[in-house]
Amino acid sequence: METTKIAIVGLGTVGTGVAQLLLEHAEHTNRYAGRAIILEKVVVRDCNKARDIKLPDGVLTDRLEDVTKDPEIRCVVQLIGGVEPARSIMLQLLESGKDVVTANKALLAEHGDELFDRARELGRSIAFDAAVAGGIPIVTNVGQCLSANRIESIHGILNGTCNFIISQMEEHEASYAQAVEEAQQRGYAEADPTMDVNGSDAAQKLALLAHLAFGSRVHWSEIPCEGIESLRPIDLQYAKELGYRLKLLAVARLEDGELELHVGVQLVRRDSPMAGVGGAYNAIRLIGDAVGRVWFQGMGAGRMPTASAVVADLIDMIVGRTAITFQTLQLWSEKPARVLPRPSFRTATRYYFRFMVKDHPGVLAEITGALSKEGISIASFIQHERHESKDDKVPLVIMTHHTTVGAADRAIEKINRLQMVHEPAMRMRILD
Amino acid sequence: METTKIAIVGLGTVGTGVAQLLLEHAEHTNRYAGRAIILEKVVVRDCNKARDIKLPDGVLTDRLEDVTKDPEIRCVVQLIGGVEPARSIMLQLLESGKDVVTANKALLAEHGDELFDRARELGRSIAFDAAVAGGIPIVTNVGQCLSANRIESIHGILNGTCNFIISQMEEHEASYAQAVEEAQQRGYAEADPTMDVNGSDAAQKLALLAHLAFGSRVHWSEIPCEGIESLRPIDLQYAKELGYRLKLLAVARLEDGELELHVGVQLVRRDSPMAGVGGAYNAIRLIGDAVGRVWFQGMGAGRMPTASAVVADLIDMIVGRTAITFQTLQLWSEKPARVLPRPSFRTATRYYFRFMVKDHPGVLAEITGALSKEGISIASFIQHERHESKDDKVPLVIMTHHTTVGAADRAIEKINRLQMVHEPAMRMRILD
Repeated sequence: METTKIAIVGLGTVGTGVAQLLLEHAEHTNRYAGRAIILEKVVVRDCNKARDIKLPDGVLTDRLEDVTKDPEIRCVVQLIGGVEPARSIMLQLLESGKDVVTANKALLAEHGDELFDRARELGRSIAFDAAVAGGIPIVTNVGQCLSANRIESIHGILNGTCNFIISQMEEHEASYAQAVEEAQQRGYAEADPTMDVNGSDAAQKLALLAHLAFGSRVHWSEIPCEGIESLRPIDLQYAKELGYRLKLLAVARLEDGELELHVGVQLVRRDSPMAGVGGAYNAIRLIGDAVGRVWFQGMGAGRMPTASAVVADLIDMIVGRTAITFQTLQLWSEKPARVLPRPSFRTATRYYFRFMVKDHPGVLAEITGALSKEGISIASFIQHERHESKDDKVPLVIMTHHTTVGAADRAIEKINRLQMVHEPAMRMRILD
Repeated sequence: METTKIAIVGLGTVGTGVAQLLLEHAEHTNRYAGRAIILEKVVVRDCNKARDIKLPDGVLTDRLEDVTKDPEIRCVVQLIGGVEPARSIMLQLLESGKDVVTANKALLAEHGDELFDRARELGRSIAFDAAVAGGIPIVTNVGQCLSANRIESIHGILNGTCNFIISQMEEHEASYAQAVEEAQQRGYAEADPTMDVNGSDAAQKLALLAHLAFGSRVHWSEIPCEGIESLRPIDLQYAKELGYRLKLLAVARLEDGELELHVGVQLVRRDSPMAGVGGAYNAIRLIGDAVGRVWFQGMGAGRMPTASAVVADLIDMIVGRTAITFQTLQLWSEKPARVLPRPSFRTATRYYFRFMVKDHPGVLAEITGALSKEGISIASFIQHERHESKDDKVPLVIMTHHTTVGAADRAIEKINRLQMVHEPAMRMRILD
């Protein structure tokens, strides 16, 4: 049997999973690769650190040049998080003639242009299916399996941490802080979960997907993005009462030939598949003009699900499929964006609003008047009787018909300035 | 831009969809193919028949040799249903040097060995993602995207016709006959729906998936298979009462290293994603040892969803990915089966039983005694009070804990022979 030598750079959670699959599933992975995959080197910072895995003698090294200077190693799995030194290491690998598999969405979201250009100049390839939605092979599905479709929209639950936190708040009536703590204890959230809970992680993944599916060139930091930090139990209760659940959704959607991009908490109907995606799962609903609605769900993170995506990429690379896809898709090339972003204020959506108001005559007339002035039509409305409230604050919940973000901005701004309104309105989109 | 000439053989529903995508989405499909795809010929039986589509002049022909004798046509989409002449035409195409995309599951389920062998001898490839689950790219996902996984189980709703009929019976409390008629009127069922409703269609797709995912070599006709013909509204009502819905599932599942294959109606929990798959949708739940549980859902048939899968295969073929996958997977090659079928009687499952019994003392003791003798443990039990019944038949519904098919066979055989039992028991598996 022919052999192919490969290397792993970075032996953290995912790297260990990849090594496990290659060592323990060798017969299986070799069959799919059509040859024996030899794990020749694993590069780490500290060779003496205790590891979850026993590697064959001579494999572990702390010298990157053991890989870059070995011409027999053609494919490298690079699993270093963050932007630097991940970027410089990837450049070194490409320049020494390696094809590279990565799971690093932040790196590609920041430096996709530079890295893909350099790879093209050098005749090398980069694969990154594990960078978006963990075990769900969404990059290959969008870039290859659904290639006959002009994609119309992608709605994704792309951050398992947020999904777990919201599920905890819903199921255990926990506060946001309690739910974050639980997520940290279970290993679903980092010690500093900022990039997850403020939506940045989902926005980075969305930027990659939008580039792949629509040819958009929007930097992730320019995507309108709201996280889950301001989520309060009261909104989960109202959503439930209205027949909805809350999900942090990443949205890319064509409207009149422009691309709407958005990350934020949305209300999804309780009986929809999206509502059923619990815990640390990710899910993607994609609408293509030929295929119609397709749906993918799976683990969005974790050692083995992510390793599953990495090793599939590695096999694609070894057999030669990656080089073809890399060449035809021309991702992050000089080509101009195929679609322009739709200014946020023009995008259409339904809304959930919660206002905290004084329980005084006239307040409802003022609020509905402000909405009506912007042409915002009310679909449903809840105001409960006030019991034993310490103050005179009353929540007032309104679900609207379709309107635009701009109209909602203007109406909310006016309403927030009203004397009888206690605190800034809570607003969330409703998934169609 | 480089060009590639292709041909379509068969211009029925799906063929028309494929031609539409190639002609109307040319800019899009050409980008994914990295070259201009020219629809050079479309072979039909009757050139004068009225068509849904306007083809460029000179494309339509009734002579297959316009394709086989044109060396510039390298890839052919063959969309002829049934086994013959589809088989001979595919052999002619392969022998004239063409790679072939097909959506014909029956042809591959019957003659996969012969066709794949011949293609290998001739250095040609066959692609067939559209043959299973229509628009869901499950063949590529199993054969490529999930290649790092040892697959543990596949549970699929693979027949949209059956799913639609069952949904109709549930939602509109229709009889089986009424639901079939409705399906025929809406174009979801053929005039003769036998192959759909008796489970053969699902069994053929399952045989293909099981070969791909597990290396099994079981002929579709050897897969234990029950259709939906014996489904009665009373069982849908009981399932509902118990918190379940009914679905025709195709199952391939490893148990102790042997592969269980089975097609039949199963009870699925109302709150599970499988229960939410309505109408003409298909869905597949796959468990891999690395990725865990992944879920795919999409349209299982229809002109454009199926054309979506066919055109993706065609693009894979044109760019060269198909040749690689075809070569590495070695489907239907000389290799022995990688897994042996698990004899049905040994497979483990939970059961729903409905008995129609005389409302006499002792009947329950007899039935539970027969179950207990086979070690079958009862999880729940329903017997409603009898009102205004014309006869003394009473339905008695039992849900069991895990048992084996063999134990259930023996118990049911004994129970069916009891004098106080009116008609053969209804039995269905319960999805874990």
